Amino acid sequence: MSLAIISPGKNPDVWIKEFRTLAPDLVIEIYPQITEPDKVEYAFLWQHPEGILSDFPNLKMISSMGAGVDHILRDKSIPSHIPIVRIVDDKLTFSMTNYVVMAVLNYHRRFPRFQMNQTRKVWDMSYPEIDVTVGVMGVGALGKDVMDKLNNMGFPVVGFGFSDKTDFEYPYYTKDRLDEFLKEVNVLVCLLPLTPDTENILNLALFEKCNPNTYLINVARGKHLVDDDLTIALEQGLLSGAMLDVYREEPLPKDHPFWENWKITMTPHIASVTNPEAAAPQVIENIKRSRENKELVNVVNRTKGY
Amino acid sequence: MSLAIISPGKNPDVWIKEFRTLAPDLVIEIYPQITEPDKVEYAFLWQHPEGILSDFPNLKMISSMGAGVDHILRDKSIPSHIPIVRIVDDKLTFSMTNYVVMAVLNYHRRFPRFQMNQTRKVWDMSYPEIDVTVGVMGVGALGKDVMDKLNNMGFPVVGFGFSDKTDFEYPYYTKDRLDEFLKEVNVLVCLLPLTPDTENILNLALFEKCNPNTYLINVARGKHLVDDDLTIALEQGLLSGAMLDVYREEPLPKDHPFWENWKITMTPHIASVTNPEAAAPQVIENIKRSRENKELVNVVNRTKGY
Repeated sequence: MSLAIISPGKNPDVWIKEFRTLAPDLVIEIYPQITEPDKVEYAFLWQHPEGILSDFPNLKMISSMGAGVDHILRDKSIPSHIPIVRIVDDKLTFSMTNYVVMAVLNYHRRFPRFQMNQTRKVWDMSYPEIDVTVGVMGVGALGKDVMDKLNNMGFPVVGFGFSDKTDFEYPYYTKDRLDEFLKEVNVLVCLLPLTPDTENILNLALFEKCNPNTYLINVARGKHLVDDDLTIALEQGLLSGAMLDVYREEPLPKDHPFWENWKITMTPHIASVTNPEAAAPQVIENIKRSRENKELVNVVNRTKGY
Repeated sequence: MSLAIISPGKNPDVWIKEFRTLAPDLVIEIYPQITEPDKVEYAFLWQHPEGILSDFPNLKMISSMGAGVDHILRDKSIPSHIPIVRIVDDKLTFSMTNYVVMAVLNYHRRFPRFQMNQTRKVWDMSYPEIDVTVGVMGVGALGKDVMDKLNNMGFPVVGFGFSDKTDFEYPYYTKDRLDEFLKEVNVLVCLLPLTPDTENILNLALFEKCNPNTYLINVARGKHLVDDDLTIALEQGLLSGAMLDVYREEPLPKDHPFWENWKITMTPHIASVTNPEAAAPQVIENIKRSRENKELVNVVNRTKGY
């Protein structure tokens, strides 16, 4: 029996190191050099080539290398009886929240304008803050933490999601009330999982319903956003700006217009990076539970898509 | 009896509007057009010319236009029997904390580096965070709130001040243990009141005791910092960078070297701006208490200097 690590283009060395420390007896195979496919019982995946898992007839569990599982679920060839588990990592939450709070604060405190004024040696104290109400799309572990931290700092927060919620401690809207949600906020944070429901949700029709000068922060997936629609919305002033960490194609091609759009602030998918030290024990724990026929932790609901 | 507003170079109109709404009968005089100096019983000050208060023989109370009172206390001609009160404003705390958290996060998440990479169309995901422990110098209402918010977000925080504290909920050092304090932290936030003890405290001798690459955030007063020493410390790599909101001379002269130092991020004294709507009622309340011979609120301790 073995664990196959399949993460093309991503160096798995830090993961191997952690796994070896935690489970010295575990046989680890690295794609594409899988020597004994029929012995692979566990697969640890990031952006695997579709269909490849059918090479492993004895697969018992699939683990995502991160919080997101859209990269696994898009592969329709995976048999439905194989459980998929994901990483839930406090450090990941810490990073994601701090990134979003940074983006909100830089907008709220007009940081880019003061940077521009510094280069021009302009001393202008006028209008130093933009009042913000932050709308968080996706109120799972990450979205909820973002709301808690912003609320604790004194910012009004409003949630949006696809599941009904009872006793949610902030104002919350589901998809039939998207228009109302958008009218409540002027900063929009996308933390939705990528599912058929949410793909392309950040499009021109949505931007047209936003309050004028709404600021967009997308830290979920590039496929939530229709790129051309963002460009149009910024040109037309529907949105005042955007901070993006994720893109439809990564690395973002050099000829993509986002790079040179001065209203877009970009980072290269670093808002939240899974931390192998925190995450590896979860993978090993699930392997142990699988072997002992115990219930797995952080199992993905395939119908919901997360 | 009247209130004299003395804030040379600063338009007092928003204050006048608030005072008139709250106390329609109050006579307001605006420096330098004070028509009846002997009727002035209350003075509301920001950067007043030294010695001028001796023009008002019947002065009963002095109120600062902000949280700081160094601009009042430096005037040694003010008789010691006249109470000095200051503004304590939640909105001021909100703004100050958000500014400091923004500065910490931009450093922690290496925001300037990602901005630079965007202009060069470079996709570099490596090393996306700098681990930080934040040292806050000055743990009054503002400093304590900064510590609470950063702590809530998961950052280790350490305090420094001139008063002994019992039961302070974070590690705390007084001046005889400055060296130990500096060794604990790699981000240094100055929120001290400006007093003879703290003037020029941010100097080369202090920077030499810091951990290598410590990041400095000064949101207190320009006179806390020895300007040339900061330039040297940045050149020598004792500090990795600085974010400054306050300066020895404001507006900062165009020929000051800070403007063009790429390791210094500057804003024009906007970290926290007193909000007349929140603060005016405190001034009126103290005038009412003074008239009724009741105890004033937020009275400054002249010996401590805040």
